[in-house]
Amino acid sequence: MAQSDPSAIKVSMRTESDTLGQVEVPDNSYFGAQTGRCLINFPIGGVNERMPRPIIQAMGVLKKAAAEVNQEFGLDAKISTAISSVCDEVISGKLYDDGHFPLPIWQTGSGTQTNMNCNEVISNRAIEILGGTLGSKNPVHPNDHVNKSQSSNDTFPTAIHIAVAIELNMSLKPAVTKLRDALMAKSNEWKDIIKIGRTHTQDAVPLTLGQEFSGYTQQLTNGLQRIEAVLPHVYQLALGGTAVGTGLNTRKGFAEKAASRIAQLTSMPFVNAPNFFEALGSRDAMVEVHGALNTIAVSLMKIANDIRFLGSGPRCGLGELCLPENEPGSSIMPGKVNPTQCEALTMICAQVMGNHVAVSIGGANGHFELNVFKPLIASNVLRSIKLISDGCNTFASNCVKGIKPNKANIAKIMNESLMLVTALNPHIGYDKAAQIAKTAHKNGTTLKAEALKSGIAEKDFDDWVRPEKMLGPT
Amino acid sequence: MAQSDPSAIKVSMRTESDTLGQVEVPDNSYFGAQTGRCLINFPIGGVNERMPRPIIQAMGVLKKAAAEVNQEFGLDAKISTAISSVCDEVISGKLYDDGHFPLPIWQTGSGTQTNMNCNEVISNRAIEILGGTLGSKNPVHPNDHVNKSQSSNDTFPTAIHIAVAIELNMSLKPAVTKLRDALMAKSNEWKDIIKIGRTHTQDAVPLTLGQEFSGYTQQLTNGLQRIEAVLPHVYQLALGGTAVGTGLNTRKGFAEKAASRIAQLTSMPFVNAPNFFEALGSRDAMVEVHGALNTIAVSLMKIANDIRFLGSGPRCGLGELCLPENEPGSSIMPGKVNPTQCEALTMICAQVMGNHVAVSIGGANGHFELNVFKPLIASNVLRSIKLISDGCNTFASNCVKGIKPNKANIAKIMNESLMLVTALNPHIGYDKAAQIAKTAHKNGTTLKAEALKSGIAEKDFDDWVRPEKMLGPT
Amino acid sequence: MAQSDPSAIKVSMRTESDTLGQVEVPDNSYFGAQTGRCLINFPIGGVNERMPRPIIQAMGVLKKAAAEVNQEFGLDAKISTAISSVCDEVISGKLYDDGHFPLPIWQTGSGTQTNMNCNEVISNRAIEILGGTLGSKNPVHPNDHVNKSQSSNDTFPTAIHIAVAIELNMSLKPAVTKLRDALMAKSNEWKDIIKIGRTHTQDAVPLTLGQEFSGYTQQLTNGLQRIEAVLPHVYQLALGGTAVGTGLNTRKGFAEKAASRIAQLTSMPFVNAPNFFEALGSRDAMVEVHGALNTIAVSLMKIANDIRFLGSGPRCGLGELCLPENEPGSSIMPGKVNPTQCEALTMICAQVMGNHVAVSIGGANGHFELNVFKPLIASNVLRSIKLISDGCNTFASNCVKGIKPNKANIAKIMNESLMLVTALNPHIGYDKAAQIAKTAHKNGTTLKAEALKSGIAEKDFDDWVRPEKMLGPT
Amino acid sequence: MAQSDPSAIKVSMRTESDTLGQVEVPDNSYFGAQTGRCLINFPIGGVNERMPRPIIQAMGVLKKAAAEVNQEFGLDAKISTAISSVCDEVISGKLYDDGHFPLPIWQTGSGTQTNMNCNEVISNRAIEILGGTLGSKNPVHPNDHVNKSQSSNDTFPTAIHIAVAIELNMSLKPAVTKLRDALMAKSNEWKDIIKIGRTHTQDAVPLTLGQEFSGYTQQLTNGLQRIEAVLPHVYQLALGGTAVGTGLNTRKGFAEKAASRIAQLTSMPFVNAPNFFEALGSRDAMVEVHGALNTIAVSLMKIANDIRFLGSGPRCGLGELCLPENEPGSSIMPGKVNPTQCEALTMICAQVMGNHVAVSIGGANGHFELNVFKPLIASNVLRSIKLISDGCNTFASNCVKGIKPNKANIAKIMNESLMLVTALNPHIGYDKAAQIAKTAHKNGTTLKAEALKSGIAEKDFDDWVRPEKMLGPT
Repeated sequence: MAQSDPSAIKVSMRTESDTLGQVEVPDNSYFGAQTGRCLINFPIGGVNERMPRPIIQAMGVLKKAAAEVNQEFGLDAKISTAISSVCDEVISGKLYDDGHFPLPIWQTGSGTQTNMNCNEVISNRAIEILGGTLGSKNPVHPNDHVNKSQSSNDTFPTAIHIAVAIELNMSLKPAVTKLRDALMAKSNEWKDIIKIGRTHTQDAVPLTLGQEFSGYTQQLTNGLQRIEAVLPHVYQLALGGTAVGTGLNTRKGFAEKAASRIAQLTSMPFVNAPNFFEALGSRDAMVEVHGALNTIAVSLMKIANDIRFLGSGPRCGLGELCLPENEPGSSIMPGKVNPTQCEALTMICAQVMGNHVAVSIGGANGHFELNVFKPLIASNVLRSIKLISDGCNTFASNCVKGIKPNKANIAKIMNESLMLVTALNPHIGYDKAAQIAKTAHKNGTTLKAEALKSGIAEKDFDDWVRPEKMLGPT
Repeated sequence: MAQSDPSAIKVSMRTESDTLGQVEVPDNSYFGAQTGRCLINFPIGGVNERMPRPIIQAMGVLKKAAAEVNQEFGLDAKISTAISSVCDEVISGKLYDDGHFPLPIWQTGSGTQTNMNCNEVISNRAIEILGGTLGSKNPVHPNDHVNKSQSSNDTFPTAIHIAVAIELNMSLKPAVTKLRDALMAKSNEWKDIIKIGRTHTQDAVPLTLGQEFSGYTQQLTNGLQRIEAVLPHVYQLALGGTAVGTGLNTRKGFAEKAASRIAQLTSMPFVNAPNFFEALGSRDAMVEVHGALNTIAVSLMKIANDIRFLGSGPRCGLGELCLPENEPGSSIMPGKVNPTQCEALTMICAQVMGNHVAVSIGGANGHFELNVFKPLIASNVLRSIKLISDGCNTFASNCVKGIKPNKANIAKIMNESLMLVTALNPHIGYDKAAQIAKTAHKNGTTLKAEALKSGIAEKDFDDWVRPEKMLGPT
Repeated sequence: MAQSDPSAIKVSMRTESDTLGQVEVPDNSYFGAQTGRCLINFPIGGVNERMPRPIIQAMGVLKKAAAEVNQEFGLDAKISTAISSVCDEVISGKLYDDGHFPLPIWQTGSGTQTNMNCNEVISNRAIEILGGTLGSKNPVHPNDHVNKSQSSNDTFPTAIHIAVAIELNMSLKPAVTKLRDALMAKSNEWKDIIKIGRTHTQDAVPLTLGQEFSGYTQQLTNGLQRIEAVLPHVYQLALGGTAVGTGLNTRKGFAEKAASRIAQLTSMPFVNAPNFFEALGSRDAMVEVHGALNTIAVSLMKIANDIRFLGSGPRCGLGELCLPENEPGSSIMPGKVNPTQCEALTMICAQVMGNHVAVSIGGANGHFELNVFKPLIASNVLRSIKLISDGCNTFASNCVKGIKPNKANIAKIMNESLMLVTALNPHIGYDKAAQIAKTAHKNGTTLKAEALKSGIAEKDFDDWVRPEKMLGPT
Repeated sequence: MAQSDPSAIKVSMRTESDTLGQVEVPDNSYFGAQTGRCLINFPIGGVNERMPRPIIQAMGVLKKAAAEVNQEFGLDAKISTAISSVCDEVISGKLYDDGHFPLPIWQTGSGTQTNMNCNEVISNRAIEILGGTLGSKNPVHPNDHVNKSQSSNDTFPTAIHIAVAIELNMSLKPAVTKLRDALMAKSNEWKDIIKIGRTHTQDAVPLTLGQEFSGYTQQLTNGLQRIEAVLPHVYQLALGGTAVGTGLNTRKGFAEKAASRIAQLTSMPFVNAPNFFEALGSRDAMVEVHGALNTIAVSLMKIANDIRFLGSGPRCGLGELCLPENEPGSSIMPGKVNPTQCEALTMICAQVMGNHVAVSIGGANGHFELNVFKPLIASNVLRSIKLISDGCNTFASNCVKGIKPNKANIAKIMNESLMLVTALNPHIGYDKAAQIAKTAHKNGTTLKAEALKSGIAEKDFDDWVRPEKMLGPT
């Protein structure tokens, strides 16, 4: 944390320079003048508002790819190799954790300062490796070498796409799958537990607890399909478009080779965006991704809400499920255990739904050749992925896996229901069946009692009204 | 409806003209060339997407005020009187209902076409009264006379403020008050019904049903305060700012006199906006108003959700409240009655929360001297007011007033609760009390049984654990 | 309009009945007791808040399919045929336009009343055809025959999916394609017009106007892909799940045959939902659809904003494009022509972005076996589709097709730009190039003048700084 | 950072216990079993997702007040004094900065674990001061003493209100005022610079640059009024309501004295909430607060957008303002300076607008006696306040203060405008004036040339068309 707080870095300073002049930076940092300048110009939000780690790591991937491809087009091998090697340190996250990327989300909307932060750190660290002087830009220049064939305008969106593709594949998909599988296991385990169904929160006809959980399982299976459906546009990279999409100052073939190298480094099918003007001017693919995250959040809120209500009680609620007791529930009411995992997850869902609006507004407000709401967009997409991923993992482990059905209560509740009357419809018609149910409701009696009074034979009733025969078509 | 569908108007046409040339319009309509042109250029959304009636009525108010003030500054009395008289027909809603204002919401973002629609209708109808020829612009010219001292840029936002102030005062406040009072009546009526409290949807300590409903009552009392808090900015009118806020082409004193006349006509404290540049360039006051609507929607969703869950059952839910049976609940499950009023109201709340985002985006995207998302903003604010108003009225009449407590069930549930154990805290300490509750929970026994087993005297238990003593501080 | 306003229907009434008792309905209407009851219980929003027409038409499709499949399972052929025939009238929209479906969006959240409205209208109209008495439920009963094998809980979501699939395919896709093609035509037409690029709204390096518009074209091509990507879940139908997803009171094979018949009737690949519990309990597929609509709205807002700024002027703005003059722009400033189509479209985009939040909240708040925010969700999805479709069509016809480039101005602006300096980077390095540009900026001179002063040979400068060589990689 | 990562705390552990059993916690931390348990159960989001510092500080305020009031009702003075003293360390932020409050936002929705974290830290630190053994709960018990007369359900919302009131007063108001004053200074400084107005982004009639900035000034003055308008509900505290709002286990007078003491400690007019059931069951006041934040964000986005467009260029944009050059604008385009402060601020606005949706959803989804979306709500409100505050401060200092008008360009642009024609309206009528403007537009000539051609005398033209006479009513 210390590294990202410039006021704490007082030890020893060195002078770095950019086209606007000189800036003092801490001597134990690799970053240079433009990073230092940004720290001064954007004191917004403190350490919690730092550019996300996956963006910087993804920058490492693309700078490595670019350096290697630039070598094919003539960049000095020694320089290229040094850059590529330093990029491995960036990719590992070490240089981020050590505080060399202290910039906030709230900077220029193109991510230019973060691109320059990367260029400066990589160049200085490469200079160090090659025995040069930090800040000398020699033999590795941040612009002329590290940023060669690139612009902030194509690197930053490329880093966003790489980071998001990695997090979707490595974090979100496994987490959603884990929760889906935990729900599916319960669905299978409970396939024979018959319970009352509820529509409009009111008593309805029966289904099995397994069937109920199969719905949740399907929601997440669909969620996984939704992630797959948005990935193709994420795999399309802006790199090669440089400043406005034309690819000015790149060599023919650079874009193709760079995307190919990134695909190789990440084992993901990255390609050139079909149109670089779209890839710089819009961030539609991220709005699309967050649409999938929003839908998954909607699914999760439904599931977590159901589980919290089905587990409500212990004695004054629905009481069909027993949720695991992870912590004392209340500081004043002893013995109370709360659906805390449901609460954390539904709060996450609300956050993701809010983030979605932020991303959409950012996506809609680009102008001309460049969308300048990119750090906003990237940070929200990555935060939503992280929150959903962590939320699914902990919800699966600390809630779903430990849920136990309260079989006695489930059976008791179902047998009290009047809605089994539906089974009479095909036999005596809707209107007459309704009359029996309403009379039982009014009198506080059972369906059977009223059915018999209405002239139905007991044998018929017992034969017709059997929950286990109400679980599917006939 | 026929009037707004140009294809249906075939009978007889007349020629009207504007600075771009001639346009055919239906001869039985008062609108002119610019309205006709707009119908052709903006075929968006059909009859359901028409500019809201209250906007047109408010235009009538301000055009009347402007004509009368213009007379003070030299407008011919005959013309002024005719305009003022026609404005009464606009204010009554008759000319809207008769189809003379067919334009869609989705037109120019300044409402210019609606302003011209008003100018054209008023001028033609005034011409008719004065015995002239429709479309001749003589003796009453839509621009030179009806729009005198005005611009779309100050009239349309003025009409929005007038319309919204009227709807807030005449529609929303009475409706929220009606629902608040219905809830308060129940709160008072049920002040002695002790029930289990629920936190985290789990059993908690008791309160009275009256106390529970007093919370809902307070939410709406606060909602009414929120409406009051936003009205001052609504009462500030843009009229007098004309095209860019400078008041070009008005006379000194026009703005003040016009606002004063509008205040008189509406019996509301309208004044000049303190800064016309703000009043034209932003629509912040409407974003602020919708913030209050959003908060009220949030309150209503909470209240309606609680009521639907408290009324869930009849046998497999919480079953504390009996909601009125307004309709058969299901086409397949006879005897089932659903919380349909809660459902309509919570859907309305979700709509209002969505409308709020639309309004905020519109408010944020103005440029320079003029916000051009005004029809969007106005239509959403007015729709939200209408939906909340109608929703509160019907929810009060068709749900709250008919709710009956299920006293037997309320008592039964509360007495089963383990959470009365909280009453033991001050006597035996938190940890020991927790142990008793957990044992009873585990064994399915009562608190009292376990408390006695743990060494508490029966007399003490009965004295300590009394719900009626748990309803307030001691 | 008259038909949906019950107060206007006073002529002659007849008595209809349901399980709650008798209700008077207008004798010239086919609807029955439950519809009449709903009109009384939900006086919300007036005629503008009616259940959308495509939902009712889709109900016609599914009721027709159900009747025909029910016949295979034993429903009397005469009854089935009559129902099927009436459904054609529903599908045509005629019965909706004639006012037989007057119910508001804001009713029960399951759409039950609309399902019953359909059952009542179809049964009464079929009774009429078969010579019976309206309201007699004989020989065609609304529940026992028209609603046979169905529940509101599976029919209403099925109708939503059918309606949305139709509108996406028949309305949205053609409209987005039309606008895409209009933009593409301009992109091709203008492929040789070199202009200044703008990033951060600031001068940047050049591109062609054709390249700029190719970005917009790609955004909409991607939008079309996004529609395709969400259709598979829309094609999954809930029909056959009946009340809670188990398919109670249907016959084995009903669901499959019904989906197949619907596919045949619509020529779209409808299938059974893989899990009926998900299909009833969630509306995730609609949240997903609206995510795509939201992304398209974001794209359109970007495009329309760019066009309005590129067309700003005529003399004090960017002035690169001349937008078509569709109407007089101002009621006070003669000669002014405004980007009104851009304004209508961006307002639509803001509305769609707001609708998205309403849909997401509705989707997240379902409980147990049934989501009860369905009319909210359906009306917003359909409204968004309608607005985007109409918006794209009119924007293409009334704006894009008529845009003309202001070639003289484009050339003049570009040649004044300092950013052509970028072309010097590869030749003299970043720092030195920056110095030249900054000096020219400071002195108000040209790049060339300062470059020559700095020692670059004129021949080199002319050779290096050529906009037409800056449009792609080298 | 180390403190919040449990895996990093390996040095030395001690055993703490709660009602569920024993938990190992790091020996150098004051927190106890429930905090330790929460760290295990909610591994969500990492260090960036920690409960915000102002919440913990506010907890210190209320725990101090409670201890002191409890002493009046009999709490041992030694214990009370020790608690009060430790609370000063909490209030200072030191114990937070030292890692004793490591819990994430994403925990139970009531903030129970954070309340217990506070109780544990305060009790252990007080024990330490009094010479006892950490974890012994003796002589200061976390529940029986530190939490005396309190519940998580009333302390956590109280802490939210205290924290938000402090941040609104101490952070947001000064920051908005600073920016407002910076804009006002420019408005005054530029009151005589006449420029072209723009409506619909198109040329309109003139105003002064000072008038234009006076609109922005008014927006923020209104914003400050909006903050004041929401404070009254923030000053209403839930403390004294304990678990469900009844005040169970408090003494009569506790609530009043506690609120009074908090008011004294903070110098802010805190009072008891008028209804504790509302104060626990809803978080409407926070939704209301965020409504004001949303409106301010909308204002700021408008202002920052205008400034970025007015400063667009240097040569191919509007170029009326020169924004300060804070950093090199591009890694590829030398000499380019971007409106980076505008970009950071507009991104912040988008974030706040998204946060608003999250807060609204959280506010709408409470159930029964307790809203359990509180950490979500609190963290978003506090983040929005922080971002707007920092954003306004940096935007004022690093952008507004350094803006210089480009007087030459402003004058040049205005004089090219055709819209000065509006000045002719009162003299020659709308239609004729329009004709002159359109002819000049078509011919690329000046207004004057065409006016003279149309027969207007030169002297009249010069007398009528004078921008300095077009800045107000006549």
